[in-house]
Formats: sequence, C-alpha cells, structure tokens
Amino acid sequence: MKNIGKMGIHYLQRLNAANVPKDLIEKGQNRVIEASLTLIRERAKLKGELLRALGGVVASSSLLGVPLGHNSSFLQGPAFAPPRIREAIWCGSTNSTTEEGEDLKDPRVLTDVGDVPVQELRDCGVDDDRLMSIISESVKLVMEEEPLRPLVLGGDHSISFPVVRAVSEKLGGPVDILHLDAHPDIYHEFEGNKYSHASSFARIMEGGYARRLLQKLGEGVKGVYISVDLDCLDPAFAPGVSHIEPGGLSFRDVLNILHNLKGDVVAADVVEFNPQRDTVDGMTAMVAAKLVRELTAKISK
Amino acid sequence: MKNIGKMGIHYLQRLNAANVPKDLIEKGQNRVIEASLTLIRERAKLKGELLRALGGVVASSSLLGVPLGHNSSFLQGPAFAPPRIREAIWCGSTNSTTEEGEDLKDPRVLTDVGDVPVQELRDCGVDDDRLMSIISESVKLVMEEEPLRPLVLGGDHSISFPVVRAVSEKLGGPVDILHLDAHPDIYHEFEGNKYSHASSFARIMEGGYARRLLQKLGEGVKGVYISVDLDCLDPAFAPGVSHIEPGGLSFRDVLNILHNLKGDVVAADVVEFNPQRDTVDGMTAMVAAKLVRELTAKISK
Amino acid sequence: MKNIGKMGIHYLQRLNAANVPKDLIEKGQNRVIEASLTLIRERAKLKGELLRALGGVVASSSLLGVPLGHNSSFLQGPAFAPPRIREAIWCGSTNSTTEEGEDLKDPRVLTDVGDVPVQELRDCGVDDDRLMSIISESVKLVMEEEPLRPLVLGGDHSISFPVVRAVSEKLGGPVDILHLDAHPDIYHEFEGNKYSHASSFARIMEGGYARRLLQKLGEGVKGVYISVDLDCLDPAFAPGVSHIEPGGLSFRDVLNILHNLKGDVVAADVVEFNPQRDTVDGMTAMVAAKLVRELTAKISK
Amino acid sequence: MKNIGKMGIHYLQRLNAANVPKDLIEKGQNRVIEASLTLIRERAKLKGELLRALGGVVASSSLLGVPLGHNSSFLQGPAFAPPRIREAIWCGSTNSTTEEGEDLKDPRVLTDVGDVPVQELRDCGVDDDRLMSIISESVKLVMEEEPLRPLVLGGDHSISFPVVRAVSEKLGGPVDILHLDAHPDIYHEFEGNKYSHASSFARIMEGGYARRLLQKLGEGVKGVYISVDLDCLDPAFAPGVSHIEPGGLSFRDVLNILHNLKGDVVAADVVEFNPQRDTVDGMTAMVAAKLVRELTAKISK
Amino acid sequence: MKNIGKMGIHYLQRLNAANVPKDLIEKGQNRVIEASLTLIRERAKLKGELLRALGGVVASSSLLGVPLGHNSSFLQGPAFAPPRIREAIWCGSTNSTTEEGEDLKDPRVLTDVGDVPVQELRDCGVDDDRLMSIISESVKLVMEEEPLRPLVLGGDHSISFPVVRAVSEKLGGPVDILHLDAHPDIYHEFEGNKYSHASSFARIMEGGYARRLLQKLGEGVKGVYISVDLDCLDPAFAPGVSHIEPGGLSFRDVLNILHNLKGDVVAADVVEFNPQRDTVDGMTAMVAAKLVRELTAKISK
Amino acid sequence: MKNIGKMGIHYLQRLNAANVPKDLIEKGQNRVIEASLTLIRERAKLKGELLRALGGVVASSSLLGVPLGHNSSFLQGPAFAPPRIREAIWCGSTNSTTEEGEDLKDPRVLTDVGDVPVQELRDCGVDDDRLMSIISESVKLVMEEEPLRPLVLGGDHSISFPVVRAVSEKLGGPVDILHLDAHPDIYHEFEGNKYSHASSFARIMEGGYARRLLQKLGEGVKGVYISVDLDCLDPAFAPGVSHIEPGGLSFRDVLNILHNLKGDVVAADVVEFNPQRDTVDGMTAMVAAKLVRELTAKISK
Repeated sequence: MKNIGKMGIHYLQRLNAANVPKDLIEKGQNRVIEASLTLIRERAKLKGELLRALGGVVASSSLLGVPLGHNSSFLQGPAFAPPRIREAIWCGSTNSTTEEGEDLKDPRVLTDVGDVPVQELRDCGVDDDRLMSIISESVKLVMEEEPLRPLVLGGDHSISFPVVRAVSEKLGGPVDILHLDAHPDIYHEFEGNKYSHASSFARIMEGGYARRLLQKLGEGVKGVYISVDLDCLDPAFAPGVSHIEPGGLSFRDVLNILHNLKGDVVAADVVEFNPQRDTVDGMTAMVAAKLVRELTAKISK
Repeated sequence: MKNIGKMGIHYLQRLNAANVPKDLIEKGQNRVIEASLTLIRERAKLKGELLRALGGVVASSSLLGVPLGHNSSFLQGPAFAPPRIREAIWCGSTNSTTEEGEDLKDPRVLTDVGDVPVQELRDCGVDDDRLMSIISESVKLVMEEEPLRPLVLGGDHSISFPVVRAVSEKLGGPVDILHLDAHPDIYHEFEGNKYSHASSFARIMEGGYARRLLQKLGEGVKGVYISVDLDCLDPAFAPGVSHIEPGGLSFRDVLNILHNLKGDVVAADVVEFNPQRDTVDGMTAMVAAKLVRELTAKISK
Repeated sequence: MKNIGKMGIHYLQRLNAANVPKDLIEKGQNRVIEASLTLIRERAKLKGELLRALGGVVASSSLLGVPLGHNSSFLQGPAFAPPRIREAIWCGSTNSTTEEGEDLKDPRVLTDVGDVPVQELRDCGVDDDRLMSIISESVKLVMEEEPLRPLVLGGDHSISFPVVRAVSEKLGGPVDILHLDAHPDIYHEFEGNKYSHASSFARIMEGGYARRLLQKLGEGVKGVYISVDLDCLDPAFAPGVSHIEPGGLSFRDVLNILHNLKGDVVAADVVEFNPQRDTVDGMTAMVAAKLVRELTAKISK
Repeated sequence: MKNIGKMGIHYLQRLNAANVPKDLIEKGQNRVIEASLTLIRERAKLKGELLRALGGVVASSSLLGVPLGHNSSFLQGPAFAPPRIREAIWCGSTNSTTEEGEDLKDPRVLTDVGDVPVQELRDCGVDDDRLMSIISESVKLVMEEEPLRPLVLGGDHSISFPVVRAVSEKLGGPVDILHLDAHPDIYHEFEGNKYSHASSFARIMEGGYARRLLQKLGEGVKGVYISVDLDCLDPAFAPGVSHIEPGGLSFRDVLNILHNLKGDVVAADVVEFNPQRDTVDGMTAMVAAKLVRELTAKISK
Repeated sequence: MKNIGKMGIHYLQRLNAANVPKDLIEKGQNRVIEASLTLIRERAKLKGELLRALGGVVASSSLLGVPLGHNSSFLQGPAFAPPRIREAIWCGSTNSTTEEGEDLKDPRVLTDVGDVPVQELRDCGVDDDRLMSIISESVKLVMEEEPLRPLVLGGDHSISFPVVRAVSEKLGGPVDILHLDAHPDIYHEFEGNKYSHASSFARIMEGGYARRLLQKLGEGVKGVYISVDLDCLDPAFAPGVSHIEPGGLSFRDVLNILHNLKGDVVAADVVEFNPQRDTVDGMTAMVAAKLVRELTAKISK
Repeated sequence: MKNIGKMGIHYLQRLNAANVPKDLIEKGQNRVIEASLTLIRERAKLKGELLRALGGVVASSSLLGVPLGHNSSFLQGPAFAPPRIREAIWCGSTNSTTEEGEDLKDPRVLTDVGDVPVQELRDCGVDDDRLMSIISESVKLVMEEEPLRPLVLGGDHSISFPVVRAVSEKLGGPVDILHLDAHPDIYHEFEGNKYSHASSFARIMEGGYARRLLQKLGEGVKGVYISVDLDCLDPAFAPGVSHIEPGGLSFRDVLNILHNLKGDVVAADVVEFNPQRDTVDGMTAMVAAKLVRELTAKISK
C-alpha cells in the first residue's frame, strides 16, 4: 500500500504544479474525511442501539479495522490484515467459542463497525498527522456508543498511539498497558518518522496517555489496555509477521498471560499481522483470530 | 466473507427474536447506506473536480472496487481481490505504462474512487436486492463526475449485472458487451439464486441493458462495455480463479482481442480473480493488473 | 472424497428411479463387501503365519489404514492420510528406529495389512452403518491373527468408535483409553450425524466399550487403547490438520506422555492428519510417522 | 512407495534367512492375489450388471486405478495419482460435463471399479513379473463386463505395457495407439529394468500387441488405444510430472488432437501425474481430470 | 546481496573515518582481485589443456557464472541464479541431451570454469567500475583457452555489457546480437546508474561492441552473440524473474527462434533468472537449464 | 551438487580412458587448489590488516562458508546454505544487533572471508581426502590473521571434522566442544563413507582433536568450540533441515544454552541448514542468521 500512499502525494504535487487551486483540494479532502467518519459513526450507532435494545450487556467488544501499513519500515503487508483476520474468525475450521465458553456469534459478545478507510484517505492526499487524528476520532465514535469497547485490528504497531490516545482522552485519564512485543518500540523516532511503528510507545508515554508499560505480567491492574504485537510469538507459532525474531513466546505462554490478567480491560489491539508472509493455509491468521476470541473474552461482560 | 454475510442475517434473526423493534433496525441500516454512498460521492467528486481543473481530458478511467464474493457458488476469495489488484498495479516489479505508452501515474489517465463497503453493509444485515442497487448507485455516482468512466474491480461475476444496468441507465440506452469468459454465465438461476455469478448475463439481457453479447470478437462496435472474467485464460496464465477450466486463452490472445477492438469503451470490469488460489508470488494479480493497464488504455483519452 | 461418497448415493437413487431391481444391487454390494473383508483376512493371515513361524514375538504392531474422511464436518483431507504416513515412515530422511532403539524394519516389530477400501465401498453405495461394521470387522480380522495388534491410521476421528468397539468385543471387556485431542469429541451428535468425528467418544462410552476417558495422564493403567488426534499438538508442530486450535501441546509433551505411560497397550490410532493442509515438504506427515514409531515401541514386544 | 516395495523384498529375504518354509509364504501370497482379483471382479460385475439393467449403453468408461510408481527412475509420486485425480474430477470447482456436453455424473457415461492394490501386493513380496500379470488380469476383468471399457489412471508409464497387452489379448488382435508423450519410451531396457517406464512401448511392440505407434495424429484409425503421458504438456500447463521437459504442447493442442481423432476408442490411460510436484492448489490434477472427462467423451456411447 | 554490497561500502567509509591508511586498503584489494582472476585462469587452463589433449573439438561451451544482482532496480535474487541453474542441469529429473542429441555429460560438449567471486569482491569494497572490468577480464581468460567459448550464467542483465565488450575486444571486432527480452534495456541510465540492468545495451552500442541489435529473428548472421533475458517468456513459462510482464513468448517460440538461427555462435548469456521468485519446485530453473542445453547445442562442435 | 561432484569423477575417468596424461591433470588440479587457497589467504589477510589498523580488538568473528553437501546421505541442499544465511543476516527484516547489543555492522564484531570454492574443486576432480585438507587449510589461513576467529557456515555436518582438526592443530591442543544435534553423529562410518555427516565426531575424537563431547550443557569450560546442527531444533522452529526429527529443542532453549555457556569460544560452526526444505519465506534462514548473531556475541570481544 506504500506505493498507493506515495501515489497520493505524487498526485497532489502534480496538481499543485498544474496550479489547481489549493483551496479546491482541501475542501474536497474535508468532505471525504467527514463522510468517512460519518460512516463509522452510523455503523457504531446502529450496533449500539441494537445492543441497548437487547439489554443486559455491561461491556461488548466491537471490532474496528485500521489497515495502516505505510509507516512500517519493511514489508507493507499489515495493511491487508483486517479482512484476513475476520475471515479466520468466521471460517468454520475452528469453533467460535472462547476457551471459557463465550460464543462469539452472540451479538452481545462481539460486533463489528468495519474499517477506517485508510487507503482511500491516503489516495486523496491526506497526510500522516490528519490520518492519526482520524484514527483517534474513529475510536472515540465507537466508545460514544455504550456498551461498545474497541478491539482494534491493525495495521502495524504505529496505530497503537492514536488508539491509546483516544481511549485515554475519552476515559479522562491514563490507562495501564499490557504490551506483548518482541521489540520495545520506544525509539524516539525511526528513520526520521516520529509516527513509525517503532516509536508508538514513545509517543504514548510522552503524551501521558498511559500510566506504565507492562512488558511482563505484573500484579493486578485495572483500566487495562492490551496491545499484542504478533511478533512477540516465536515465528514457529506466528510466521506471518514483518519482523521475524526467533526465540519468542509460545502461543500457550500468551494465553496464560491473558488468562491470568486481572482488571477491567477497556480496549485492545492486535497488530503487525502480515498476510503476505503467512503460510499458504493461513496459520498466523488463525492465531490472530484466536487472540481476538480470547481478548473478546477479557473485554465483554 | 460468506460467513460474515451469514453472520449479518443470523444477527438480524436474533434481534427479531429478541423483539428489537424492526423500525429501529431499518432506520439504522438506512443511515449506514446513506453514509456509504456519501463517501463514494465525495471521493468521485474530488477526483472529478481535480481532473476538470487540470483540463484537456475527454475520458478518464476511475477504479471502483466491488469486493463481492458472497454470491459465488464456490470459494469466497474474489471478495479479497480489489486491494490485491491495486497492490500489483503499483508494486514496482513491473512498469506502470501501457503497451502503447500511457503512464498510469498520470492522474488524467487513471484515478481511484475506492471500494463499495460490501462487507460492512452485509454485516449490518443489508440484503442482496439492496446491495445490487447500492452497487448500481455507486457506478452512477462515478459517471456523474465528467470525465470519469468506471473501471470496476470485482468481486465475482455477479457484479456485472448491477454495473451494466447502471451504465445503461445513465447513458440512456443499451451498450454492446465484449464478454471474455470460459463459461457463458447465462443460467436463468443457479442453485435458486437469481443474482448468482452464473446468471449475471441472463439478468443483463432480460433487463434490456445490452444490445448483444459478443463472446467472440465481432466487427467494429461503439459504446462498448468490456467484461473480463479471468477464467477465460488458461490456468497456466491465471491460476488464481475459483473455477479452473484448462484449455483456455493465452494472455497474448486476450491482449490481441483488446488491441483489435474498435469503438468507444464506456466502462469495464475485471472479475473472478481469487487471491486465495493465486501462486505464492501473485502471478494472477500481476495478470489482473496488466489487464487494468490495457483497459485503461482503451478507455482514457 | 466427500463428493465420491455423494456420487455413490446419487448413483443408487438414479438406479432406483430407473427401476433397477433393488435385489440385484444388494447382492452385488454383498459380494463386494465379502471380497473386501477376504482381502484383509488373507493379508492378516499371511503376516500372522510368518510371525508365528519366526517365533519369539508376544505382541506386534500391524498397520491398518482407514481412509475415511466423509464424516468430517470440514475439509475432506484425512481420507488421503494413510499412504502419506506410510511414505513418511519409510522415506529415508529420518531413521527408522524408535527413541529407545527398536528397528521398524524388523517384521517382528511392525507389519502392515493395508487399507480398508473405504472409497470403493462408498462408491458402490454402501451406507455409513455398514461401513462402521466393516471397519470393526476388519480390526477383528487383524486381532484374530496372534500376535498382531492393530495400529490404525485414520481417517478422521469418527473411526475411533468402530475400532474401540471391535477391540473391546474381541478382548471381552472395556479398555482404558488415553485420548490426546484438542477437543473432547463427546457431542451427542454433530449436525445430525451420530457417527461424526465430533461424536466418536460419545458412542464409545454409550456402548460401554471403554472404562474411562483419560484426557490427562493418570496413574498406571493396563489394557490401554491410545487415540492420538493430531490437533492435540500446537499447529506450529502439526499444521496439517483440519481444525486448527492454537495453544496446544508441543511434540515433546506428547512423547513424554507416551514414554511415561504404563500398562499393556493393546491397540492405537493416529487420526485427523490432513495432507491437504500440510506444509509443502510434509512436516506433519513426519510428525505422524514419528508417532507411529513411538506407538509401535509401546505395543510391540 | 519405492521403499515400501523394498521393504517387502527385505522382509522376504529375512524370512528366508530365518528358515520360514518357502511353501508357507507362496501359499499366503497366492491367497492375497486371489482375494485382490476377486475384489476387482466383484466391483466390475456390480457395475456391469447395473449398466445392463439400465440399458441403452454401447460402451461406457470405467476408471481403474493402477498406483504403480516403483518402476519409475526418479520420483515415486505417480503412485499417489489415482485418488488425487478422482478428487479433482468430483471436486466441484469445475463442472462435470465434457466440452461436448456429456454429464459424467450419469453412471452410463462413467463408473469406477477402484484400484489394483499395488502397494499391498508389493508389501507381501509379490515380484514385478507377477504384478504385471495381475494388472493385465484386472484390465481383462473390467472388459469381461460389457459394456465397460477401461480408462486406466496411472501410475507411471510402465503400466501401459500390461494394459495394452490385456486389451489386445481380450480383443483378439493388435490395437492402434495414439501416444502423447515428451519421450518415446522405447529404450530396450533402462538401468537394467525391462519393465521400466522408459521401456513400456518397446515391450508393447515386441509382443505384437499394437499395430503401429502414432506419435503424431495420422489418418482415421479404428480400435484405438489412447495413452496420455502428462509430460507431453509444457510444464506451464502441467507442472506436476516427474520428468519436466520445457517446450511441450499447450492443453488446447492436446484437446484439439483428441477432438479430431476418428475411430472406436476401446481403452485409454492417463499416466505420469506426480502429485508431489504439483502446485499447492493442484493445477495438474485439474488438467488430468479434464483429460479423463474428454477421454470419457471419446469412449462412452 | 545488495545489503552485502552496501556493507562493503559502509565498511570502507568506517575504515577511512578511522584513519586506516588508504594505501593499505588498496594493496589488499589488488591482491584479492589478482587471486580471483588467477583462480579463473587456472580453472580455464585446466579445462582447455584437457580438451586439447582429447582432441577433435572445434568449439566447446564453458559455463562461467556471474552472480551479480546489485545493479538490479528491484529484487536481488539473480545473484543466486548460477548454482541453481547448474543444479537443474545435472539434477536427473530431465535428460542431459539436447533436442538434437548431443550429450552434455561429454566434456567436449560442456565444461565449467566456475563463478566470478562477485560477492566477495564487493565485500572487500571493490567498486562497480572495477567489477565490470574483472567480469570482462574473466571472459577473456576463458576465451584464451581454445576451444573454450563462454556460456555466461547471470546475474542480472547488466552483465551483458562487460561480457559482450570482452568477446568483441578478444575477437577484434563487433559481434551480431540476438537479444530476447521483454524490455529493450536501452535506457541511457536508470536511476542514475549507468551500469544498471536497464542500460546494458545502451553501453554495448555506445562502445561499438555490436554491429546491430536483433530483437526479432532476422536473415542469416555470423559471429553471433545470444543474450536471453528470461523475462522474454510469458510468466506462465518462467515465473522466476524479477520483472514480470504477462503476454510474452512461449518456451517453444524461443526454441524455434534458436533452432532457426544460422551463423557461428561465439558466446551467449542467460540472465535475469531470480530463484527467489521461482515456484517451489523450481520450474524456471528447469527452463534456464534447458536453455543452457540448447545454447550449448548452438555453440559446441 | 552431488551430481556435479559425480560429473567431476566421471569426467576424469573419461579423460583417463582417452589416455590424457595423468600428470597433466594433476598439475592442473594443483594449480587450481593453490589459486583457491591464495584467494582465501588474501581475503583473510586484508581483513586482518584492517582490524589491526583499527585496533582494540581481542577476538573477532570471521565468516567462512563451506558449501559442502556431497557427503550427505540424503538431500544435497546444505551446499546452498552459506549465501542464504548471509542474505538473512543483512536482509533488513530483522535488526542486526545481538540480544546483548553488539552491532554486527561494526567490522570489529564481524567480517567475512568468503567461501571455500568446494563445487569448483569437485568439478576439477579433486577427491574427498584432499577436499578435507583444503578445508582445514582454509580455517588455518583465517586463524593466521590475528584477531580473526572462524565462524564457519556449513554445509553438512561432515565439515566439523576438518574445521575442528584445524582449530586444534593451530592452537596446539584439543578443544572442548559444545555439540547441539538431534543425532550423535558418531557412527564409525556411514554407508562406507568415513567422512560422512554421520561420522564427523567419530573422526574428531579418534584424532584427539577434542577433549570431550558436551552434548548437554556442563560446568564452565574454556577453549570452547561450538557446533550447532540445526536439526537439534524442533522442525516447528527450523523446518529447513535434511533430517527432520520431531521432538527437539525450542529456539529459546538453544539461546539459553548459549547465553549460559562460560569459557573462551575460539571457533564455531552452524551446519545442516537446507534451503531446499525451508519455508517459502525463509524462516530457517532467519533462525540460522540469529544463531550467527548470537555466536558472534560469544566469540567477539
């Protein structure tokens, strides 16, 4: 998708060079952004109304895809992840219940508000700063609709920053973060890009959006945000990631960490799944889907 | 994506059973549909405004993705096709000029208005009849913005019906069709589904939207619609399709047909690319991308 | 193979509709069934005679393939497993001795009586109830020939029921079962099919063929039947299964369970290997072959 | 499967060394051979009876699998071909009618008598000369049952010799052969093996079983046997063969040869498909299946 | 290999920065270059001596690998090509005779002088200009030893320039070139690199090393150099290339061009094979190997 | 590469038969061997001179590739390993620092002296005994240049014998060995070949080159040689090996063993990586590269 992003910029440069009025471009971009947010708002609203009509739900996971790959330093594949993960969740070659028995087919347990149209926005020349704001805004639109809580499907790890920022601002204070990752992602910047996937947590801490970074399981926490970078798993368990680092966790290790975690999980993300490096029959997609199932079990009640 | 569609229906049945007011659901759906069309309208409008500001363009190809796989009788993969084809168009491992030298990086030659959000609409319980109308409506929104002409990325072959209907209604009369396909797709219905991918051309002829079906290259035609089902190629050239039929055309055969075609090409589609059956390095995606390049050369001027 | 099974049924319906005498069909089927069992009887008899002539063998593993995939709720691949496992046992890219040193090339350690011709029987219109009886009968034909003990290669997990039934009836009482599986397989029925792969152990317990179900390693047992569903392994170790469930056992975990097991192992099965989902170079086939090696080490003496 | 064959020989040597009476072994082998032929006879008889009861059929293709790979000079994969081809015939991702419209689902057009149990016979120590006789005998058992005509699924090309011999002996005179192959296969012997896949046609001519070898399409012939070695196709169309020879025919070339062939086709074979070298999604299996469809169209009437 | 090349440059910059005497570096590089050429000279000399001792050979193909990928504008894979092509020539899954019957196992037909150690030279900081000279020098060392004629295995297309230059200088005049390629490769420079794979033929013409560029088969020529870029083939026949261009030649088309070519072929190259994009079982390697066989048939006599 | 080795021998037999003077051949071979060793000497010398000029380095890892696969009892792939491992070290999809922070891009930490030209020597008819001596000699040439220490990239496990012999002879006494392997490799000979990959450690102990074989981690050792056969890892972590043995170590187990090891590591090897059995995106290459990184961290100081 990188090249599509580049195309957008190239396109605008060309228009500028041809003396197309800057004003005309900006107005059009604003209308496209507004329409994009309206679509997410309406989907979240519909899901919220229905859950409230059903009643008896305190918190309910709601999938929000953020197919953003253009900030990644290597392969662009994470932009293709959200539809693949959804496919694996519902594919029928595995059951749809969590290890503790909740059924994901129950709309009170899991709903979906679709994807932020990242690619289309980039193609219209929307720059990185605004894109980050649109992602934050989208997360807030989901949280607006009680009892929905965002379960975000990346995208690369750079998305964790705008998502955590939105969650923190909406809740009115910092959250605790359980961060599972082979890399700390706290470079101040990476190859000159302050929003790169390797700098996401530097931005989060800088903004005061999180109280502390848990990179190993600590004592009981509350108001927790869970961020799972699939490269925390050994590539034997999750080959479909951009940055392979042998020597990682087993999948059962990750499940044990999640099952032992205490506290009120307010939102979560699953990032850095790269379908272009997955096995032919999609083993990593299945791993991501099972993570979504178990994260849903932590969030929904 | 089939199961996601099924999920939407299951979801509504559950809501009906729980006595959620039908009215509430319908209003929410209508708002989501309205927001979806607004987003396409705004993107088309921005692209149209800019092209008109640049000036000197008579007709310009504009990509519109229709990731619809749920009507296919076999594998669901065509729903994943549009992002893969875009990736292949801009991937850099092939050049971006047509065989006659137009450069696709020139926005006067090719622009993109994004995808109809098929999956999200289905997930909100929107049924097949409305989905077909939304697709037609989206095509008309593109044609509204002179000099844009739709170059539609499927999806399975069932999308040709709503696309041709829209083109015909917008132009105020039937079009000629160049139809390249291993199968005639003129079953009256297929397994009880009148919108199935095997019935698309039955619907088109029934509605009077096309003057005649060209399944072999005829004499000069005008006001032509080109529909390319990738399974017209021998699987040696395009393995990534759902219904493999050995003994088909070579890629050069197809290019020769296109290069020899006379007449004003008003719109086109490329359908039935199934990324889930493609080779590991995406040979069929490259073939689809080159078809888009050469169709662009036929349309844009 | 599902479609071949369906073909058999379709075929008979057509013959019935054409007024082919029912009697004629039944007599032909009976002759085919009789010939199938005769072939297994003669192979077992030859192997038994030779082992008795060699002398000094108390118990000897004998492979019996049951390529049954048509009861599986998802992919049909397990029907292709037995020849692939045999290939991996003898392929030469691994040694043919067990971890404790027995050599599988010694006919006193391992022989083979071939496959139940499941596909051919289905193609002649033989129904599920009779097929289950034929499988049980085949297992008994192997046990008839002292010192042979059946080591059954599935097929999907539905075969465990007729195999355990035969072993239990032949021994005159229930057996203990070590059951390694990611799923309990004790649904009363699954999608209306009482012989489905998800109901096998419900049928076994119902019939009194087993004393208790060991799903974790217990204290010393005797008269043990070992049933290994390959999906008990994490997909990192055995990707070639139909129902992927991340978070499973490591291969070394399974070997430890087997090595620590006490008691007289009277028969065993290895089920749910699906070659159609294996890696290109057959890693899961190698895993299944090593399981056969280590099960042989438990049985033969 | 080579190693399984070797295992059988090794096994007998060991038994001889242990002074197991030779007589005991031979009697057991004879009973296994007899039971193997009985099973084929009964299946052919059932299919023949039913076709005759249905009436109105002059000639009907009947599949007979000969999974023989042990004579091949390179990879052993052709032994796995027959079940893969059957799977591809009925898999549903292609239609089941021939290019001229016969429906393979009609039992008057195509039936199946199963496989010669090659692997099991080898495992009992049956040697090559007897195996060749058993294959010939099996073909005759099919021809015994009017109106069945054998459509043999190899296996490597060495099987053409015993099949043509049987057809010729049964018809009482030589047949004409349409032989499509990248190699002439007329070495007197290959690496000391007179039944090798490279010598099959030397044996056929030597025995007077065929009148002439057509390696290019000649004038009208009658009583034709068609032998298709998949390596006659360019590897772009059929990569799944043991001996790749770039520069071969296109699939359409082969179909044209078949469609233009005149004369009464009495039997046919499709050989040298090697599933272990096929693409991940089985393109060569699809090609073999379509060849079976079109050969059926030539034979059945 | 690109990064290894970059490593070499980075390494030298670091040494310069550390005030390591420039002189010390240059002397070491010169000794490494000298040793590299000595190794090629000695191998060519040994092969030449032996051929002359055997006698009766007028011209004999001698393989020279040039694993140069660092000038390619996209994937670096061609640097891995020479060992893969050799493997495919001798792998045993195809025969080793040409279509006209010469046996490549005869040392009078084909010998091998090994590879120019491109990677090691780059790692010592040798720059592009010198590398091009070393390649030319290596080709001349082969031609020094009558009756050896160079059959060069690339590498990307940039190697054709130093090879043709050497052949021309050694023969004392320009050669005719049969150039099979999907792209003309006559950019004056590509992304600022005058030795890029897209500029090779610009350099050749500029230097007067060739009389004319045959991009289609012309009338009889003599003193011919044949340069085959594998991307002249449709990707269906040769998927393992860096720059896929659907719509190319079939493999039989290329063989026909070669078989029809008249004139004395003095040298040849096969370039742009990229093993990293080949199919799992190496179809393009087989195609490259057969091209080497048929080019050998044109050269050796 | 096996067949290339065979070609060399076949070639010499043919020359002998043709009465080419034996003397001529031997002199030529000697010149080729001398040139091969000169090339390694000059590369090592250059790297040593530069490191000494930089100063402050006590010990520095230097890669030496030994692409020897012809002694392997099964697949020949390890001969292709060294370039793939180098590619993975520098590929950019992982960082180039060790787990403890050393940067491999620093020439004081890691340099490269290239490959022993095994294939070219075999092609000139050099036999196994001399090849083993050339490998030993090459290792000594590296050790000659203080502070370089050899980090050898196999090749199959047979290379450990000549490497350890050289290290021991150069240091003037036996070394301790940490040997990580799924198999003990101490057969006296394997299929008649005393240098086979299964006999390497028998030869080492026989020659007195090592004090003891550590196959489990012992107490603190010094003067340690580390030999890592990739098949010590479970195939889930390293599928790209010739001899798959399920039930092995996890990658983290191996890292823990290395991190806990005390003593002065004087040299190391990484063997039995077989790229022909690796996953499509090279997971085992990444594992081998990370092993090189961590071994570098043990050696360099």
